[in-house]
Amino acid sequence: MSRSTEMGCERKWDVRPSRLSLKTCNPIRSIVENLQVKPNPNKKFIPLSIGDPTAFGNLKTPDNVLQAICDSVKLNESRSYGPTIGHFDARRAVAEYSSHQGPVTADDVILCSGCSHAIEMVVSVIAEAGRNIIVPRPGYMIHTTIGEGMGITIKYYDLLPDENWKVDLRSLESLIDINTAAIVVNNPSNPCGSVYTEEHLCEILEIASKYCVPIIADEIYEHFIFSNHKFTPISVLSKDVPILTCSGITKRFLVPGWRMGWVIIHDRQNILGKEFRKGLYNISSRLLGPNTLIQRILPLILKSTPLDYFDDMMAFVESQAKYACQALSKVPSLRPIMPQGSMYMMIEIKISCFPKFTNELAFIKSLLAEQSILCIPGTCFNYPNFMRIVLTVPEEILHEACARIIEFCKEHSDVKSKDQNGHTAEHVIYDSTNLYVKGGIRTRVSLIT
Amino acid sequence: MSRSTEMGCERKWDVRPSRLSLKTCNPIRSIVENLQVKPNPNKKFIPLSIGDPTAFGNLKTPDNVLQAICDSVKLNESRSYGPTIGHFDARRAVAEYSSHQGPVTADDVILCSGCSHAIEMVVSVIAEAGRNIIVPRPGYMIHTTIGEGMGITIKYYDLLPDENWKVDLRSLESLIDINTAAIVVNNPSNPCGSVYTEEHLCEILEIASKYCVPIIADEIYEHFIFSNHKFTPISVLSKDVPILTCSGITKRFLVPGWRMGWVIIHDRQNILGKEFRKGLYNISSRLLGPNTLIQRILPLILKSTPLDYFDDMMAFVESQAKYACQALSKVPSLRPIMPQGSMYMMIEIKISCFPKFTNELAFIKSLLAEQSILCIPGTCFNYPNFMRIVLTVPEEILHEACARIIEFCKEHSDVKSKDQNGHTAEHVIYDSTNLYVKGGIRTRVSLIT
Repeated sequence: MSRSTEMGCERKWDVRPSRLSLKTCNPIRSIVENLQVKPNPNKKFIPLSIGDPTAFGNLKTPDNVLQAICDSVKLNESRSYGPTIGHFDARRAVAEYSSHQGPVTADDVILCSGCSHAIEMVVSVIAEAGRNIIVPRPGYMIHTTIGEGMGITIKYYDLLPDENWKVDLRSLESLIDINTAAIVVNNPSNPCGSVYTEEHLCEILEIASKYCVPIIADEIYEHFIFSNHKFTPISVLSKDVPILTCSGITKRFLVPGWRMGWVIIHDRQNILGKEFRKGLYNISSRLLGPNTLIQRILPLILKSTPLDYFDDMMAFVESQAKYACQALSKVPSLRPIMPQGSMYMMIEIKISCFPKFTNELAFIKSLLAEQSILCIPGTCFNYPNFMRIVLTVPEEILHEACARIIEFCKEHSDVKSKDQNGHTAEHVIYDSTNLYVKGGIRTRVSLIT
Repeated sequence: MSRSTEMGCERKWDVRPSRLSLKTCNPIRSIVENLQVKPNPNKKFIPLSIGDPTAFGNLKTPDNVLQAICDSVKLNESRSYGPTIGHFDARRAVAEYSSHQGPVTADDVILCSGCSHAIEMVVSVIAEAGRNIIVPRPGYMIHTTIGEGMGITIKYYDLLPDENWKVDLRSLESLIDINTAAIVVNNPSNPCGSVYTEEHLCEILEIASKYCVPIIADEIYEHFIFSNHKFTPISVLSKDVPILTCSGITKRFLVPGWRMGWVIIHDRQNILGKEFRKGLYNISSRLLGPNTLIQRILPLILKSTPLDYFDDMMAFVESQAKYACQALSKVPSLRPIMPQGSMYMMIEIKISCFPKFTNELAFIKSLLAEQSILCIPGTCFNYPNFMRIVLTVPEEILHEACARIIEFCKEHSDVKSKDQNGHTAEHVIYDSTNLYVKGGIRTRVSLIT
């Protein structure tokens, strides 16, 4: 009598989901979805929470990108299976587009289903249970979502809010141990909007080199740089440290739903070697490659999208950042930190100024319930007492949102609001509401200043 | 002095890929890519290996599908992030399209980046290291590719070639133990092309029910059914066994590169429960959902694609199967097994008839080197001494391929080839070559008969 027959009759249904699936958790979703608060029905809901530049329809994907889809959908190749690492032409186009990162060939590029998938692939190959990855705090917690489910320990190094979110190098160095598989550097940063100088990136590289730890460079916001700041890919500065750069077309081309990202392997000293590349290729075979319709148009859109499209978009995002920063910095109970790039801004909530709120979640909930504004609590980025707002919403909505946040803080904080000219918070609200109906971004910003 | 500082100076670069990445292996790729044989430069290469119905351009995606892309690319929603399990409208359309599977609502559907991703998600949630999944032999080894890397044991139950690849129920039952997480049923089968009767599916369900093991139903070829055969979704027959059905638009709509598949949860007795669904939702958050441009057109294409498009395609695939089966069954050293659906045929290579070849890999290599024809060796499906051919290649190419295979077998086997009418293999070759220039599928098939 076989074991299976023996066990047959007594067996009962008991199907349990895997630990991987239970431990895979997206903090933004699990925290925000469990706020259990509804917006004020008398005020229009403004989600400053959604990290999707297309959410409001004010920013437009360039016409040539849309036209390229219509043209290429007719081609057989844009419907067939592609190689699991992506078509050669598409990978070569990414290599050329990414030449500012250092010497890159098509062979160094693996196409993925979005930048999240790029990060998932890299994490799956570079680490495993028993090892650890060091990530920034505050940070977008995709590495936590992906890594913790797999038994990988996630450690957090601090970013310094008073130094434009530079890396606390001592904190970073202190976390490295023999099981450290990688350091994640997210530049420009989500949620902070920091853009690191060459000098600072070299300091980070020095530590990685000293302890022989590769770097995962999450550079999805590489083109979201405000004026007077310069983005340097960390790979271009590395002499020895292998860099696995993750990026994609998601944000710059305003097509997050198209799920097209990539990993670029920078390994000039051949430290990772063939086995590591094979590991990445193997992992790509789990999903059989990203959408080939999008792959097909990559060469065209990466080369031919007019540059002024990006310039206009960045001028807009920067003006939004300036507006929000200036408006909210007049509120004594808040401290917005002006970003240098990306599309977000972090704002400190001086929780001691709010007798009614014990933590930032309580603040966020009341802000939603009373003013119908949803911001992402810092806890979602492992950084309490802050909140993140998105800067790509339409201008008038951002202004309205700032006005409501100011009103909310005035109502709930126990400090009087004064701006630099001695105006009270009320005056500022009046101003910002007033500005709201006037034209021209610059006018508004300068009036507020 | 911290541990990290202590270890600093002695550390050397030693970056190793994870066991997951090294153990993730696609047998088709690793075996076929390592054949190390080139096609005969004097004969045009015919790949009967590629399981992609779009590979030769003879089968066309319906016009309405292509038009839908051009129309929807202009909509903001087709470029924005979607929910990680997919947009409600798209999930509802899949639920309606899949109503033959039993009662299904949008809530039971999770959209994925292709059917491979659907299988990856289900396997990741239902099993983990230490548990096992029972899969068919011969079978498409995606479960092996995905599961073994994760430490999940893959066990193989036999299909019976002499009974149209029915499941060897004793083999299946004998493999179940307390660590069995799921049974995979692939119907219609890749590579076998079998389509199971209701009665046979009930026999499988009875075993699953007896031992309380859920079923993963890989039904990606659900609409590829030859005349006189009927497809029954296993979910419609299940009284208690939870069924996780994986499918997609890949094959039927001829868009494998678009990577759009789904999981449908059939759990009428609520055995899986909320936790299991949550596990699936969690896993979906790793990739943030499939391409939204394709999601956007799902309702339209699932409802409005003309039915005669499918009918014509299936008539073509079936006529190809009949042609190849009849042509190759005249070769005594081969035994083609006529499929009942899907787009493949398995052919037994009677290896004892070939003094020069010790196994089917040697046969496959020589066939490529001499006749420039590439078939997939049965070893890739865990089933030596067979080979798989793809039936969706253009008619004249299939005929040419059959003629060359016949010639090859005649040359290398030590038995004389005779068909039912006493014709020699040479005569058959002449026939098939002759037919090759005549018109009309049915004429050709009937002439050979």
